[in-house]
Amino acid sequence: MTVHAPETPALVIDERVARANIARFQAHCEAAGLALRPHIKTHKLPLFARDQIAAGACGITVQKVGEAEVMADAGIDDILLTYNILGVDKLARLAAVARRVERLAVVADSAVTVAGLGAAFSREERPLTVLVECDTGAGRCGVPSPQAAAGLSATIHETGGLVFGGLMTYPAPGGQSAVETFMRTAKALIEAQGIACATITSGGSPDMWKAGGETVVTEYRAGTYIYNDRSLVAGGACSLDDCALTVEATVVSTPTPTRAILDAGSKALSSDLLGLTGHGTILGHPEAAIVGLSEEHGIVHTTRENEFEIGQRVAIVPNHACVVTNLFDFAWLKGNDGVLRRTAIAARGRMT
Amino acid sequence: MTVHAPETPALVIDERVARANIARFQAHCEAAGLALRPHIKTHKLPLFARDQIAAGACGITVQKVGEAEVMADAGIDDILLTYNILGVDKLARLAAVARRVERLAVVADSAVTVAGLGAAFSREERPLTVLVECDTGAGRCGVPSPQAAAGLSATIHETGGLVFGGLMTYPAPGGQSAVETFMRTAKALIEAQGIACATITSGGSPDMWKAGGETVVTEYRAGTYIYNDRSLVAGGACSLDDCALTVEATVVSTPTPTRAILDAGSKALSSDLLGLTGHGTILGHPEAAIVGLSEEHGIVHTTRENEFEIGQRVAIVPNHACVVTNLFDFAWLKGNDGVLRRTAIAARGRMT
Repeated sequence: MTVHAPETPALVIDERVARANIARFQAHCEAAGLALRPHIKTHKLPLFARDQIAAGACGITVQKVGEAEVMADAGIDDILLTYNILGVDKLARLAAVARRVERLAVVADSAVTVAGLGAAFSREERPLTVLVECDTGAGRCGVPSPQAAAGLSATIHETGGLVFGGLMTYPAPGGQSAVETFMRTAKALIEAQGIACATITSGGSPDMWKAGGETVVTEYRAGTYIYNDRSLVAGGACSLDDCALTVEATVVSTPTPTRAILDAGSKALSSDLLGLTGHGTILGHPEAAIVGLSEEHGIVHTTRENEFEIGQRVAIVPNHACVVTNLFDFAWLKGNDGVLRRTAIAARGRMT
Repeated sequence: MTVHAPETPALVIDERVARANIARFQAHCEAAGLALRPHIKTHKLPLFARDQIAAGACGITVQKVGEAEVMADAGIDDILLTYNILGVDKLARLAAVARRVERLAVVADSAVTVAGLGAAFSREERPLTVLVECDTGAGRCGVPSPQAAAGLSATIHETGGLVFGGLMTYPAPGGQSAVETFMRTAKALIEAQGIACATITSGGSPDMWKAGGETVVTEYRAGTYIYNDRSLVAGGACSLDDCALTVEATVVSTPTPTRAILDAGSKALSSDLLGLTGHGTILGHPEAAIVGLSEEHGIVHTTRENEFEIGQRVAIVPNHACVVTNLFDFAWLKGNDGVLRRTAIAARGRMT
């Protein structure tokens, strides 16, 4: 616990804003008849995963076995790992996680992945739940058609050690109608095979407020909504006041009246642009733009002369909250009392 | 020590290539009459800092007090910190580092930074060496003119606890002649004030092979040369065979005959483009390009159908080695015997 301003660059999370974001999207999902399964990649913190579940989330989403391990350590007992897990090392770790949580599910988009999962779980006491990942337009992972989804669901159903759990997709931006069409067709084909399709899970924070309504989707995965960021502000999903995560930085140089240099570069803000111009919004300085980054420098141009002075602290809303979280070993949590408390970002850097 | 293939994504350093790179650029600097002061941000590893000094480097360059602390812990005793250090916490840590190394120098580009350094070192036994950072065209930090450099050198000279050490610049790409003009003028103005200008240090790996010749520069700082990367290959500074750092990844999905998905995304490769198209070179696969990254996925398009199969391992030369090093907690060092040894990246994530 400290009231001392932390050394910069510093990752600061306003807990009041984060908790309001948790409550607001949870309420949206409940009104829309959707289970909410937050993606913890945004915060990588057990304490917020627990808060999300306490608020009503059905469980969490992770992408790495290492993230599942951290969250299982923290007592989270319903985990969906939305990644093809391959290789004996990772499969053995996956099986170890499965033994100590109430419910673990993973996804697969190929018979190769399913075979590996089956081999790893064939001698486990409890079967592993496997969902089929579907490419509904994003062009990343996923089976390409409802027919392929139905075929892979049958393969999972027939594989010892596995239980077919449903369908998963990460949609393209604005891709909700494509999700509906794909998933309705796939679900019908799967059920025509006599296989239940319990869960249909979609996700993405940019389109989160459109989730729900007349939909075949049963569950929604969103990550960024807990902190929000400049990309979501630009997309109209939130306002700057809803952004819980800021990077605090110090002006270290003012080489000209209209140029200032911050001690936050790509090592603190990342190079992610997400289609935006500039590298973050400096709160309270609408005339200023972060026009360039090197690893340890943020280059600010401003139209207001002598706007900044050396030693001045600023708070930056970054373009992309999730990647920024991964760059800091610890965050400063700002409580309702205004006091900053340091917490290790427990699932940071879990590469495998 | 292991012969087991590490879980992916994995950061792998070929020690033989790294040592050859160290030796080659050291020889270039010696032939050019330049002291070499490698920037350790590229490797963040005490063992390679020691190798660089053993090969003839005059010391090392760092940008963060935390990096200096790690390197001082490792016995490195000549450190240049090329950053404006501000604030009581960082200044106290800087003074603590200065007490336990043979030589510590920092840079400043303003009277505010100089005053802070003076206050922190006024009661120290040994004065701190301070160089003036000069903007020779890069538009980042630095005093804007030789006249301003001379003025600030006098301020340093007159400040108790400090010794003026010379001039430092990080040049714009191709900016060597601008460096010469600025530095010759500044040096003359400083010497005309009766102040010695011992060191003039320039840097940058992209232009490293042009360093030397008829120059006022006495010292060169380069970082990336130890590993090289795709940006330096593209710029003609090295070949792919000279790249010591690769990210090993696994093909986790082949959704179409010409699309493959790798388990290395921006969390492993970073989003840095450095003006390039694509996010890395997959060794041995010239028909393939990493066309997109999300945090945990690398999206590969290839013109050769069915080029990749699920479970296949690939090695990627990333666009920018330094930022990749900062993303991994540990590296696998590949020795001459081909064996991989795991080592913690000791100075990773030192934000302050």
